[in-house]
Amino acid sequence: MKPTAAILAVGNEVLRGSVVNTNAAFLGRELSHFGFEVVSHGVCADSRQAIRFRLGEALRRTEVVVMVGGLGPTPDDVTREGIAAHFNVPLVFSAEQYGRLQKIYKRYGKRVPSLVKREAFYPENAKPLINRFGIALGFSIEHQQKIVIALPGVPSELKNMYFDVVLPILKKKYGDLFKSRKLTVRMTGLSEPEVMKKLGENFFKDRFDFGIYPSAGEVMIRILSDSAGVHQRLKKKIAARLKNGIYSWDETPLSVVIGKILAKKKKTLAVAESCTGGLLASRITSHPGASLFFRGGTVAYHPVVKKKLGVPEKVLRERGEVSAPVAAQLAKGVRVWMESDYGIGITGIAGPDGGSASKPVGLVYIGLASPDGKSQVWKHVFWGERHQVQDKAAAKALEYLWRKIR
Amino acid sequence: MKPTAAILAVGNEVLRGSVVNTNAAFLGRELSHFGFEVVSHGVCADSRQAIRFRLGEALRRTEVVVMVGGLGPTPDDVTREGIAAHFNVPLVFSAEQYGRLQKIYKRYGKRVPSLVKREAFYPENAKPLINRFGIALGFSIEHQQKIVIALPGVPSELKNMYFDVVLPILKKKYGDLFKSRKLTVRMTGLSEPEVMKKLGENFFKDRFDFGIYPSAGEVMIRILSDSAGVHQRLKKKIAARLKNGIYSWDETPLSVVIGKILAKKKKTLAVAESCTGGLLASRITSHPGASLFFRGGTVAYHPVVKKKLGVPEKVLRERGEVSAPVAAQLAKGVRVWMESDYGIGITGIAGPDGGSASKPVGLVYIGLASPDGKSQVWKHVFWGERHQVQDKAAAKALEYLWRKIR
Repeated sequence: MKPTAAILAVGNEVLRGSVVNTNAAFLGRELSHFGFEVVSHGVCADSRQAIRFRLGEALRRTEVVVMVGGLGPTPDDVTREGIAAHFNVPLVFSAEQYGRLQKIYKRYGKRVPSLVKREAFYPENAKPLINRFGIALGFSIEHQQKIVIALPGVPSELKNMYFDVVLPILKKKYGDLFKSRKLTVRMTGLSEPEVMKKLGENFFKDRFDFGIYPSAGEVMIRILSDSAGVHQRLKKKIAARLKNGIYSWDETPLSVVIGKILAKKKKTLAVAESCTGGLLASRITSHPGASLFFRGGTVAYHPVVKKKLGVPEKVLRERGEVSAPVAAQLAKGVRVWMESDYGIGITGIAGPDGGSASKPVGLVYIGLASPDGKSQVWKHVFWGERHQVQDKAAAKALEYLWRKIR
Repeated sequence: MKPTAAILAVGNEVLRGSVVNTNAAFLGRELSHFGFEVVSHGVCADSRQAIRFRLGEALRRTEVVVMVGGLGPTPDDVTREGIAAHFNVPLVFSAEQYGRLQKIYKRYGKRVPSLVKREAFYPENAKPLINRFGIALGFSIEHQQKIVIALPGVPSELKNMYFDVVLPILKKKYGDLFKSRKLTVRMTGLSEPEVMKKLGENFFKDRFDFGIYPSAGEVMIRILSDSAGVHQRLKKKIAARLKNGIYSWDETPLSVVIGKILAKKKKTLAVAESCTGGLLASRITSHPGASLFFRGGTVAYHPVVKKKLGVPEKVLRERGEVSAPVAAQLAKGVRVWMESDYGIGITGIAGPDGGSASKPVGLVYIGLASPDGKSQVWKHVFWGERHQVQDKAAAKALEYLWRKIR
């Protein structure tokens, strides 16, 4: 039985969507990885009552509650007060923290502003957690076998404090948790239903924790199990039943896997995109290390640019911009122009406009040119709105390249 | 007194931080803008019990609860069952929805997989909400003056369904909220603190509802007010104090505003990107109608490609790939090669590696070439992680182009 954890963020700006709650994702990832069952995320208003009430809810269902935000110096930050109200204790003054504040401001030749003096207070039943990365003071409270931890909402301060002061507290009480076994598998060319079908009913007869995460053209599976036997058995089943689609046994995304293969083989890649408009190149370059194998790309949006890559006027006129020979020539043309080993060419109709009976929105041709100069073309009709068609086309192009070079 | 709303996402992948909960941010923004007081966000596990329990909590404190996710075909998706359990009703079959599924699969010459048949079920007391953007069925329940709405967790489907089927439901019951005057302003080149400073204290003396939404290089302001007088006064103040940065008085994104200006002037654009790796082109082509003004782009990642666009070997050797002359030549070179009127060139160090004392991570040069063939270059050092540097660089390039052509 795993210990449970809840994450409770405080802030009107989060409620109104001014800020995306990446802190919850970070803590969810880290606490799960530590071995906790994260049973809830919550966000509540900058209000003593709301904080007090929501903290009570969270504590009723979990052993560890990590609160984030509302620890600033301004009057609207009342997380300290809300937590103190829940435990019915006063706030007390930390001379050590105030000394730190004085030092920090002294560096800039300033005295501590009266407003900022609030940063030296914390609930009487709490243990202050010094924040070496900012002025907001964190704190932890151990109460009836449960732990409440309050951290600042600035993402960088939160992350640093998690590793700096939170992890030690958790390890002290939950040191035995590192044992549970983790398994992550990423695959391409399979939909969520297809993966479930291939795994089959009997896959789920063991006791373990299963998560499946689909994204355009991709599926990720995550498994947590306590038994080494189960872990091994699941791993074997997955390898056997999904092997044709599996590209990594960890978090590594497909574009990085492809990059590693190409870098190892000392091969390079260039891409020419029409309907995906730079998305494929952007995917590839969103990860560090792309320069090891990626020559670059051309967004051949206008016919003028397609011609520059060697697509004949005649083909454009007779077959149209969205056609197999155009995809093939884009792949070959960009490969030659950028002096790469492999070339990808994509042309299609992302929509919402531009479709016809013979060439519907979602029609995409993907060309792949190889070091020998030859090329292959695949035809697809992707379903969805503009950016879904673009996402699926980019993912499918990476899949074909991966199948070619793996 | 505003009506209250809560957002409750369902999904272990969100709890574990495999996915950042951008859906909550989107709904928080839209529901606040509609006129609701969003009092809580929550995330709970893929478990009938958890869903039932958390829905109960949310309904106790709010009038409208929007639930997101857990509507997929796989066994771990149990939002339908959890909500039905809360209301103690059975699930019923929608022939209409099943017909839709059959049509969709038929398009690909397939029958509806048995697993996917689950997508045709919904709680007996609910009204099905057809999802024109995916296979998952949404639904809404009106119960004791309260509304529960369940939507799929795929962000694009959620967004489309919000405007397509949710807004009409909210307007029907809360139409009077619509009378309140809404003001949306989007600006570039200003940070949130800069905007707040320029607006000044006295801006906030009237009674109105204010939301500010920063993103890379951009800020959006949304205001709700009941008085026409206040509305007009605020509009005047904003126009006067922020005019230099305002590019639209509605939701229109900057790349679309630029596209409209260029199309109107019958001018075209081409971009050459190094460190942004296709992100800028991808931004421009993510909206329909880009073909009216966008010639295309080159991702000049490798020196070979930079040379193809006319960057002299000597410049690369003496000044380096990340330098002002390279940005200028990329802009000029791509403009000439793609026969466009304007050209943008970007070169920089997105990081995390590749930085040095003289050229730190975040250093970016942006070049802009004009119809007269002349070019300008701007130097920036952007702070943040790789994707933040890329986002900010792409946004800044669009800002310079906009300032040039507006």
